[in-house]
Amino acid sequence: SSNIRLAVIPGDGIGTEVVAEGLKVLNAAGVKSETTEYDLGARRYHATGQTLPDEVLDELRGYDAILLGAVGDPSVPPGVLERDLLLRLRFELDHYVNLRPVKLFPGVTTPLGQARPEDIDMVVVREGTEGPYAGAGGAMRRGTPHEIATQESLNTAYGVERVVRYAFEKAMTRPRRKLTLVHKTNVLTYAGDLWGRTVDRLGLEFPEVETDYCHVDAASMFFITQPQRFDVIVTDNLFGDILTDIGAAVAGGIGLAASGNVNPARTAPSMFEPVHGSAPDIAGQGKADPTATILSVAMLLDHLGHAQAAARVEQAVADDLIERQSAWTARSTREIGDDIAARVAG
Amino acid sequence: SSNIRLAVIPGDGIGTEVVAEGLKVLNAAGVKSETTEYDLGARRYHATGQTLPDEVLDELRGYDAILLGAVGDPSVPPGVLERDLLLRLRFELDHYVNLRPVKLFPGVTTPLGQARPEDIDMVVVREGTEGPYAGAGGAMRRGTPHEIATQESLNTAYGVERVVRYAFEKAMTRPRRKLTLVHKTNVLTYAGDLWGRTVDRLGLEFPEVETDYCHVDAASMFFITQPQRFDVIVTDNLFGDILTDIGAAVAGGIGLAASGNVNPARTAPSMFEPVHGSAPDIAGQGKADPTATILSVAMLLDHLGHAQAAARVEQAVADDLIERQSAWTARSTREIGDDIAARVAG
Ligand SMILES: CC(C)[C@H](C(=O)O)[C@@H](O)C(=O)O
Ligand SMILES: CC(C)[C@H](C(=O)O)[C@@H](O)C(=O)O
Repeated sequence: SSNIRLAVIPGDGIGTEVVAEGLKVLNAAGVKSETTEYDLGARRYHATGQTLPDEVLDELRGYDAILLGAVGDPSVPPGVLERDLLLRLRFELDHYVNLRPVKLFPGVTTPLGQARPEDIDMVVVREGTEGPYAGAGGAMRRGTPHEIATQESLNTAYGVERVVRYAFEKAMTRPRRKLTLVHKTNVLTYAGDLWGRTVDRLGLEFPEVETDYCHVDAASMFFITQPQRFDVIVTDNLFGDILTDIGAAVAGGIGLAASGNVNPARTAPSMFEPVHGSAPDIAGQGKADPTATILSVAMLLDHLGHAQAAARVEQAVADDLIERQSAWTARSTREIGDDIAARVAG
Repeated sequence: SSNIRLAVIPGDGIGTEVVAEGLKVLNAAGVKSETTEYDLGARRYHATGQTLPDEVLDELRGYDAILLGAVGDPSVPPGVLERDLLLRLRFELDHYVNLRPVKLFPGVTTPLGQARPEDIDMVVVREGTEGPYAGAGGAMRRGTPHEIATQESLNTAYGVERVVRYAFEKAMTRPRRKLTLVHKTNVLTYAGDLWGRTVDRLGLEFPEVETDYCHVDAASMFFITQPQRFDVIVTDNLFGDILTDIGAAVAGGIGLAASGNVNPARTAPSMFEPVHGSAPDIAGQGKADPTATILSVAMLLDHLGHAQAAARVEQAVADDLIERQSAWTARSTREIGDDIAARVAG
């Protein structure tokens, strides 16, 4: 089959370090790829004032997929890179599914004293293009005692239905076939009503899937006290953001949490990235764990139809994680990448 | 001093059971009180269609404080009791501080394998009257493929400043004097900007307080992995809802989490309630843990100036929690109440 045409956005901070290891493992997996690097993030913003030029966005549309490290730096005002680069990519490329597995690999230390790998194995299907992330809102009389600032969550039948449908389909591929809607229907009644009705309606098309509902506050607690409640979760953009960081924490840390910003309709390339940020405090020191990026590469391979290669990468990570338990010294970013790549090539 | 005039809303499910024990302990604390019970919640709604009649609300304004158990039942459509009773009380009585301590008592089992009591000792100051809870929003073309549903977060300089000021004052009373703003300023830029500027500005008035900022997703993770980061947290209504359930989970469970809906200006009575809900699944079985309600009574006593009685109740709970470790059998709701009341009296 033909080469994967891959756009790579290393970004800022540890982004460049972890992406290098992700690409190393991609190569080791034996799937041919051509990569083109794009310099986007804090450096470019400071040098040129640009976040995501239209021509770059248009070029990116031509790839099979995008691999992103992390963007963001304290020197950039909050929101600039997030809204104008990261979220713009997700929105423009219609990444309406933000897919985030939450899985405790054997051998991984979890802060939960009692949890076993079989207790934590879920997939969060986070909506990626609307809700509280839409950017709607404004401020009036800014800086005065009469200021008001608003943020609006925009939810459409179109947007909710497609992500809920994806979640049902995902649930059908899993042994437990359970789908939990997480929302706050008792307070956010308009949006909650739309989400709830959509799950009920599509549920009729998927009678084999058991559906459940959980308020976001209770769900956040159950991630810690009863993670085995969950199989597939579908939720909005903001709740999904919070839940997947809780998920990362209980499943062994942000260094292991992978994600895909997926356009299931394939009208534009999907984008894969670790859940973690650019971590400026440890950047350039070879301390970052590239595992989340490597697992994101596995998701990328799977999305592009290379299921076997994806499984090999995931297995290599699983084996590496077991070995880590008994390791005497911490490895550098590059060493972890080398070791996993060697297993994949294997 | 004169009697405390207390309005009591036992509510639904386990609400009635835990409130009975809270009142038992209040009596044992030797602070004189006159209580008047109000029948509000699912039962009244089904019997009369009423949630919170205006005359009842007016009467409630006349008390020194309100003790609430829990309201809600699956037989009532989502949002009705929450919006028209619980949130209406919080809004009408201007409970702009929702005070929620997150504290791991010695002897209490936490799902976090490594956490010690000194690691988990914070207070979440959750805004109580605006933000995403304002109820603003709507739906159009409901039930059609063209439906849109919105929810609006309303944030005012007035509302944000008063709760942030309270949080700074609270931080000044604690040894660490640290205040962390939790928000999502990089995505919810308008509201985040108002919250961030308010903390910066008031910080000048409180130079002894160390301030910090944390995105809500990261904060949710740090509650699990590094709870010792936090002392006092200030945040909006929705983030506070989620964070305090995570807090409850890590500090030993929802059975221990107390809260106060506080009107610091004292223009109306404050209302104290356990963080947990009405738990219809275990209602009427004497299985509910009344400890959260009893700790809420301690907060009530403290709010009304009975600091010594409050401290006695809290100490009695702390002692009871240590004893629980070595208990052979689970006690009923009433037995726990009896035991704590005996310690307080004795
Ligand atoms: C950086 C930020 C905009 C982003 C988000 O909130 O989606 C991040 O937290 C994530 O989860 O990918
Ligand atoms: C019942 C619900 C409206 C309420 C809230 O969201 O505030 C509850 O979860 C709480 O935390 O007190």
